[in-house]
Amino acid sequence: MRAVLVSLALALAACIPVWAQTADDSRPATSNLPGAEYPRIHSDLRVTFRVHAPGARKVQVVPGGNDNGLGKGPFDMTRDEKGFWAVTIPPAVPGFHYYWLSVDGFPCNDPSTFTYFGWNKESSGIEVPDRTLDFYDARDVPHGDVRSRWYYSKTTAAWRRVYVYTPPDYDRKRKARYPVLYLQHGSGESERSWSAQGRVNFILDNLIAARGAQPMIIVMENGMVAARPGGSASPPPGAAPPRRNEAFPDVVINDLIPMIDANYRTIPDRTHRAIAGLSMGAGQALQIGLSNLDHFAHIGSFSGGGIRNFDLQTSYGGVFRDAASFNRRVPVFWFGAGTAEAARMTSVKAAVEAMTRAGINAVWFEAPGTSHEWETWRKCLADFAPRLFGKPSRASRRRTATGSKG
Amino acid sequence: MRAVLVSLALALAACIPVWAQTADDSRPATSNLPGAEYPRIHSDLRVTFRVHAPGARKVQVVPGGNDNGLGKGPFDMTRDEKGFWAVTIPPAVPGFHYYWLSVDGFPCNDPSTFTYFGWNKESSGIEVPDRTLDFYDARDVPHGDVRSRWYYSKTTAAWRRVYVYTPPDYDRKRKARYPVLYLQHGSGESERSWSAQGRVNFILDNLIAARGAQPMIIVMENGMVAARPGGSASPPPGAAPPRRNEAFPDVVINDLIPMIDANYRTIPDRTHRAIAGLSMGAGQALQIGLSNLDHFAHIGSFSGGGIRNFDLQTSYGGVFRDAASFNRRVPVFWFGAGTAEAARMTSVKAAVEAMTRAGINAVWFEAPGTSHEWETWRKCLADFAPRLFGKPSRASRRRTATGSKG
Repeated sequence: MRAVLVSLALALAACIPVWAQTADDSRPATSNLPGAEYPRIHSDLRVTFRVHAPGARKVQVVPGGNDNGLGKGPFDMTRDEKGFWAVTIPPAVPGFHYYWLSVDGFPCNDPSTFTYFGWNKESSGIEVPDRTLDFYDARDVPHGDVRSRWYYSKTTAAWRRVYVYTPPDYDRKRKARYPVLYLQHGSGESERSWSAQGRVNFILDNLIAARGAQPMIIVMENGMVAARPGGSASPPPGAAPPRRNEAFPDVVINDLIPMIDANYRTIPDRTHRAIAGLSMGAGQALQIGLSNLDHFAHIGSFSGGGIRNFDLQTSYGGVFRDAASFNRRVPVFWFGAGTAEAARMTSVKAAVEAMTRAGINAVWFEAPGTSHEWETWRKCLADFAPRLFGKPSRASRRRTATGSKG
Repeated sequence: MRAVLVSLALALAACIPVWAQTADDSRPATSNLPGAEYPRIHSDLRVTFRVHAPGARKVQVVPGGNDNGLGKGPFDMTRDEKGFWAVTIPPAVPGFHYYWLSVDGFPCNDPSTFTYFGWNKESSGIEVPDRTLDFYDARDVPHGDVRSRWYYSKTTAAWRRVYVYTPPDYDRKRKARYPVLYLQHGSGESERSWSAQGRVNFILDNLIAARGAQPMIIVMENGMVAARPGGSASPPPGAAPPRRNEAFPDVVINDLIPMIDANYRTIPDRTHRAIAGLSMGAGQALQIGLSNLDHFAHIGSFSGGGIRNFDLQTSYGGVFRDAASFNRRVPVFWFGAGTAEAARMTSVKAAVEAMTRAGINAVWFEAPGTSHEWETWRKCLADFAPRLFGKPSRASRRRTATGSKG
């Protein structure tokens, strides 16, 4: 058997990531596969990418996204005599960034990184460290579970997978019930994104341990939901599929919330239920939340788009018309964005300012220096979650003497 | 915001999977990304792959693995005038198969599929249906959760992630305690593999619903554990990193089992604890199980390697010397493999035969027609799990009147 495995390892030599040694101050990114030496991050946050592609004529690093966190790109890589292609890019913005390689024009992933669901596919990603922050790190505090669960959706007539964060004490306090935050990803992402790219579990573990937020359940579903499976005509070859999410509100209200309340120890009322999301998910949170105030009392928009033709009297069914009533019904009405995406946020900021002038208690939060990217949304969550469901009580204080790090 | 998203979609058009229409009887593989039309599986199980790579000179499909389930390959794809490359391969073996593309010699993933951790990296995969089987499908039965949990390992001085399947009734029966199966992946795979490639949750959900197996917790860790982080010298450029797993037994015994018993409602004794694994993990299950019979009473080897120089008197510390004693201590001692990997299994089969002749109650199971691949290991699990922890009791019978599919 060992001989078989060795021969397989040799046969696969062409298919595995690239490892090599360097002599500078750079270190492998924490997002790399175990043992993968590239990409490497230098102390000044320059990043060196390197891949082995001896048969290619042109290889580039293509930063993915909206955020310019890795610079504009694409970055041409240079080939050495052994067929390794490498490039060092200028200092990157701390946080998580999508990227791809282009090999003779073909977009593909860097085989040295884990993949993250974004841009409607499995994508390479890199974590650029911010040494001034540790709020999303795995720290020595009690940790919750992130559960994946399958449930049947009558709306879509299909089985669906949802991710559910349960807080550290959930399994120990067998009679305790918890409030719930429904938390959505952006366009082209999935139910996996908030835990993988967003580090939702570490952010909440750390907040809860510091008594900075109430222990809560967080439900993360896939917001890209077509009304009927296969219901859309195929787009032309090479074109993106249409963004389909028209069925998501029905999934949330008719399928997801009843399933969660039936299977987890929730406090199943509106004052203990929040909804938030980022980018496309922010639009969904506003739409679903404001249209279902019998279900939700707290709403968060992270880097959400503009509210089209915002009008205090008519938008969202006139829900903002009576500010005092709205403030009573919606104790947390929260908007956030990164300062580096300010141009995209003009219309939403104007809407929030109009609400504020009219007496609506809307919060506006800015993450300094970041754009339409996960670092902004991690910071949004870290500001938003502590405002939900009241102050943490003594009962939920950090247990410090359990002796268990699990 | 919509304008931003549309412009992003256009900018990303070169980076997304390929969709197109076909007129034959083929269907997109269930393992494809939502909306991705290729790869497609024909009614006779031929598979058509198709990608858009107008700038490439040579594109191939490279079957991944040991199993020949997709044929020997690599398969040259043919370019059309629009830059789409396609190939239809002969009928494939039902089950899950790894594969890659080679684009001008660069090994990369098919952007139309989800990725699966195998061969030490994120790999493309395809699910070829077996219409005669549904034991690993998501069926209309109560479903358990698969939880990911972070815990601190003193052995490795690092935080580690483990996946834990909890059976359907776990959250409802708040005082019930459950037996535990520790279940390991193969070389180059990870803690994700048994749930993604192996469908462990559906297999157990279905068995438990049919009263074919005891409700149990299943713990899936990453068996590729070096003794010290960064402890190995970097291999030469382009070479695979050394397979490091020498610290795994210490992680299991000293870190993992205590954490699981402290945090989940286990029955924390040897008779309610089993260990099994596939390929490399089978070797680990035998080594860890037989060396720690104070911890484990049941052991399973799925497509395990040979037991080197097997000797009834001396192997594994002489544990087989007294057959009657061994049979009392190890009620389930189970070996399985696929018939199509028989050549690899000669030595382990010989060892099992020698044990049997000596009076050891070892089970030998063969999965018909499959090789060193996940279809074999799904079938192994479906035969092994029902033998563990006694007959299902009335208390665990399927609830049929709850009205909940969740």
